[in-house]
Amino acid sequence: MPQDSNRKTVLDPFGTSVVADYERLYKEFGIEPFKPLLSRMPNPSMYIRRGIIFGHRDFDRILNAMRKHEEFAVLSGIKPTGEFHLGTLMTAKEIIYFQQQGAQTFYCIADVEAYEDNKIPFEKSEKTAVDNVADMLALGLDPKRAYIYRQSKEIRVKDLAIIFGRAATLATMKAIYGERHIGLYLSALIQAGDILLPQLEDFGGPKPTVIPVGIDQDPHIRFTRDLAQRFQRKYKFILPSSTLHKLMKGLDGSPKMSKRQMNYFTLHDEPETIAERISNAFTGGRATIKEQRKLGGVPEICPIYENCLFHFVEDDDKIIKTYHDCKTGTLLCGEHKKQTIDIVLKFVKEHRRKKKKFRGKAREILQEKQ
Amino acid sequence: MPQDSNRKTVLDPFGTSVVADYERLYKEFGIEPFKPLLSRMPNPSMYIRRGIIFGHRDFDRILNAMRKHEEFAVLSGIKPTGEFHLGTLMTAKEIIYFQQQGAQTFYCIADVEAYEDNKIPFEKSEKTAVDNVADMLALGLDPKRAYIYRQSKEIRVKDLAIIFGRAATLATMKAIYGERHIGLYLSALIQAGDILLPQLEDFGGPKPTVIPVGIDQDPHIRFTRDLAQRFQRKYKFILPSSTLHKLMKGLDGSPKMSKRQMNYFTLHDEPETIAERISNAFTGGRATIKEQRKLGGVPEICPIYENCLFHFVEDDDKIIKTYHDCKTGTLLCGEHKKQTIDIVLKFVKEHRRKKKKFRGKAREILQEKQ
Repeated sequence: MPQDSNRKTVLDPFGTSVVADYERLYKEFGIEPFKPLLSRMPNPSMYIRRGIIFGHRDFDRILNAMRKHEEFAVLSGIKPTGEFHLGTLMTAKEIIYFQQQGAQTFYCIADVEAYEDNKIPFEKSEKTAVDNVADMLALGLDPKRAYIYRQSKEIRVKDLAIIFGRAATLATMKAIYGERHIGLYLSALIQAGDILLPQLEDFGGPKPTVIPVGIDQDPHIRFTRDLAQRFQRKYKFILPSSTLHKLMKGLDGSPKMSKRQMNYFTLHDEPETIAERISNAFTGGRATIKEQRKLGGVPEICPIYENCLFHFVEDDDKIIKTYHDCKTGTLLCGEHKKQTIDIVLKFVKEHRRKKKKFRGKAREILQEKQ
Repeated sequence: MPQDSNRKTVLDPFGTSVVADYERLYKEFGIEPFKPLLSRMPNPSMYIRRGIIFGHRDFDRILNAMRKHEEFAVLSGIKPTGEFHLGTLMTAKEIIYFQQQGAQTFYCIADVEAYEDNKIPFEKSEKTAVDNVADMLALGLDPKRAYIYRQSKEIRVKDLAIIFGRAATLATMKAIYGERHIGLYLSALIQAGDILLPQLEDFGGPKPTVIPVGIDQDPHIRFTRDLAQRFQRKYKFILPSSTLHKLMKGLDGSPKMSKRQMNYFTLHDEPETIAERISNAFTGGRATIKEQRKLGGVPEICPIYENCLFHFVEDDDKIIKTYHDCKTGTLLCGEHKKQTIDIVLKFVKEHRRKKKKFRGKAREILQEKQ
């Protein structure tokens, strides 16, 4: 049976992690669906092909730059609060993808945010940052073509925060971040500085810039686009674009990964811990094997399937087959968990091997920016 | 008649610009009266002798350092929004006084505050700053023994603002500054950074520091002392001390100098303008000459007398005589205005001559800090 007919039998293998209300996002917040752009993407990433990146703001101008081989930038970052997990891995892969498509690349260690929001002292976040950068290098970020920096050491983003401060009303800050201390608001202004850093003269001036984020980060993007507009006369900013990805569920099926619930694993956990977490995960399986053989599983709600879809099964045909086998009751949860544990542990082992080699380089990169 | 008996006849020649309610300041806000320290001051300045500096916070530790010739610092600054006037002149003289008493000296150009609070772009405030620093040098600040800097260029104060941000609650900021944009709150944190800058390791570590301010600035001092307390474990800060001076009235007798009311003059105004403003000033005179000869004037409410008391008559015996002559109806307002115009114009002329020589040096000092 050729794969094509297989495809016809499936409903939507990429329909997991459904965002509560797409239509509302599109209509109320001005987020545009990504799908109409898909056919024009020269070399779509797995996230784009699978609709995991489901929305965007002004991505057209990035797409045009990609198609015409014109200058554009990608920026994102990480809050250095801990080890890479499957959530941070998403943004990481997105940055690397855009770098490979020719983007001038910026990777920001959000240590000011880690300090203001999570009370992590700079001495501590520096160590985590080295680890996070080593992860990025192991995943394929080319440091020669990337500007990797810590917020606390980047004078230009701090100065942009001061400049932008005049246009940040208390009402706006409270609407986005709630009633918080001033440091948290300041870190939001610094983040706006990060997003617009690629457009400063030091980096070649205004250019289309894409910020790959999870849907939960969209308010930052809107806030920054508003600031870019207000300071356009001075800096000639082009409003930054974004891609928006769906968020991964926790392994217990709850809508968010959470440290307190221990419902996810990091790339640094022991293999036994990872295997155990996956084994104990919630699935889209039925109450009994008999029932599952008869009715099929529900991959749409299954975190194991989601792990494979988002990260561990790169071949589209293979993931479609998995979806089909689950739906038809051919693939049972125990078997799928076993398969998944094997792929994950293989990936983690390989990743750590590579990462080890990059630790020195990562330290060097961050020390240059002291 | 010897001067001493003169003294007995006057009530309080230094009692002008009465702060509304001293007792309340002392009791509610923990400000201490300066008077009890006066007898121990090795070389009291005119402001101290005349009670213009009427209050303080923890000045005892400055006094001890002065008496024992131990290390201490003085810091204050100017918001570069315009020319020196008699108000800015007060702080200027206070800094220079403490420098002459052996203080490690810091002079801060508050250009971030000028930007956030008064919308003055940095390019513009830089020019004003050069002018302000030239004023300071002409007044006698020794640049070789002073650290003169712009907030916008001083990485350490900006970084202290980030550090302090975590402890600055919205409630505190609103209580001190009202409902303002985030940039204004940020500039308040930067000002706290200024005040504690002299205590960083780069400047020799923790030390008693005095901040000479007007009574209206006391909330900043309290805010900074609170932050110094919270971050004491990390930085070993000694709570900064302050001296508090009375505020000068406007020439129209209103309680504040105000640009809009044009009720003051700057050191840069034309001699004719200065003479005119003084001539047209409100005084403590009576309705008719006859009445004034009989009842005497009221120097306590007179801005002309205040100008002399605060700035232009340095000899205590002379100012006491003026007070006495006014009180007894000997000195009439017209005559006193004429005398005052002469002294002021002489001072301004001499000041400008000196200042001209220092303009190049001022530019050089600020450019070093780029």
